[in-house]
Amino acid sequence: MTFLITSSQNPKFKKALSLAERRDRKKEKKFLIEGFREITRAVLGKKNLLELWICPELFLGTQEQALIEQVKESGAEIFQIPEALFSKLSYRDRPDGLVAVAPFFHLSLEQIHQKIAHKKNVLILVAEGIEKPGNLGSIMRSCDAVKCDAVISSDPRTDIFNPNVVRSSVGTLFTQPICESSSQETFDFLEKEGFTLMAATPYGDKVYTECKLQGKIALIVGCEQLGLSDFWMNACKIKVNIPMLGIADSLNVSTATTLLLYEYRRQNPL
Amino acid sequence: MTFLITSSQNPKFKKALSLAERRDRKKEKKFLIEGFREITRAVLGKKNLLELWICPELFLGTQEQALIEQVKESGAEIFQIPEALFSKLSYRDRPDGLVAVAPFFHLSLEQIHQKIAHKKNVLILVAEGIEKPGNLGSIMRSCDAVKCDAVISSDPRTDIFNPNVVRSSVGTLFTQPICESSSQETFDFLEKEGFTLMAATPYGDKVYTECKLQGKIALIVGCEQLGLSDFWMNACKIKVNIPMLGIADSLNVSTATTLLLYEYRRQNPL
Repeated sequence: MTFLITSSQNPKFKKALSLAERRDRKKEKKFLIEGFREITRAVLGKKNLLELWICPELFLGTQEQALIEQVKESGAEIFQIPEALFSKLSYRDRPDGLVAVAPFFHLSLEQIHQKIAHKKNVLILVAEGIEKPGNLGSIMRSCDAVKCDAVISSDPRTDIFNPNVVRSSVGTLFTQPICESSSQETFDFLEKEGFTLMAATPYGDKVYTECKLQGKIALIVGCEQLGLSDFWMNACKIKVNIPMLGIADSLNVSTATTLLLYEYRRQNPL
Repeated sequence: MTFLITSSQNPKFKKALSLAERRDRKKEKKFLIEGFREITRAVLGKKNLLELWICPELFLGTQEQALIEQVKESGAEIFQIPEALFSKLSYRDRPDGLVAVAPFFHLSLEQIHQKIAHKKNVLILVAEGIEKPGNLGSIMRSCDAVKCDAVISSDPRTDIFNPNVVRSSVGTLFTQPICESSSQETFDFLEKEGFTLMAATPYGDKVYTECKLQGKIALIVGCEQLGLSDFWMNACKIKVNIPMLGIADSLNVSTATTLLLYEYRRQNPL
């Protein structure tokens, strides 16, 4: 059944609303998934959904009802709210009338081990200390596009459940192996698994398109302001440069990451 | 001389503040440039500066005074304001105490013609109807990185003087040929100049890395939600695809643009 809620003072509504804040997400261990496409991908990725908040006036397509039925059958509660309430819950300029509440999910490094154990060519992306949710989401979107084997967010400054990560990942957060871990644990894991670590730096000795990439490669990318920490830079055996022919000395982090991911895939087609 | 302003009711201050709004920028034909790096690049790009608003408590480096002197000598007025006022003017999480006011600048298609007239290999980026300032700025940053010959923003939904364009372009907006123009005028120009038009689409017949790119190439990229309009898609002779191996059907627009820009430059090194 679908519950109709019309008051912004409703405790369930207030609780859902609070999940826009990192502190409350952390406390509740739940987060928001907004949008038809994103929720569809969460279902596709077999993520558990607890609640679905709907505002039929805002639906943009014709498939919403089928999605709602599917989510309802999985055991989630459905709450219908008027536009005035939905706009409080929504994070978008053009909301499409669907926001889900889901519990945190986490993959362990051990689970990543099991996924890659028998593969010869493996690509893992390690993002260190990314600050902007939009960049982290965009990196996930590119990892999905090249079918990266896993994404590890190490020492993150934005949590992977931030509404802007969900949005800018266009839901690819839900369909690929993603893990949060400390840099030290991540490094120990990669070393044990026999990965070659790779970074891009202006001081890299080879242009990224001229460096042979094969086997188990972990691409390590650093935060927006400061780049990669010494810890990771020293751990990287492969150091490539991305030609910078203008006045700026670096690219946006998600853009640079994408160039490197696609170069790996160009050399190692699936 | 440097004027000290302490009231947020000061008319000069209020006028500067208003330039965060598109409507006021358009009326005044002026815009804001925030940040040491960005202002330095505006000076490097020989852009005219009218005012410089400074807050020495917030300076992060040691070169600010030299920059201020340089800007002052060029004829700009210098206004010193306390932190409480500066934080109103600033668009950043971590302001560095410098915001300039500059007049709009525009390059005409005729000026671009003069810049490229005698070149054999020319790369022009046309961005159609981009909505998010962050994407437009990031595209400019990548164009700078590959030394694209010109950037044309066609039928723009965000103006190139938006504070977030300035920021995400990291000031590369000021040092490369940039032009705003309608799609029809841009198309007529490119045709007259003998450009081959190129787009990325899932239906492209060749993978982007396997398509020979030479001569005068105009790369046309479309808006975030809808991609390229039929007008431009039909005009493109080269249609390439970027492999999408996961569940998402597209990359972020600035990311996809960067892959194509770098592929052109890989094939046509400077």
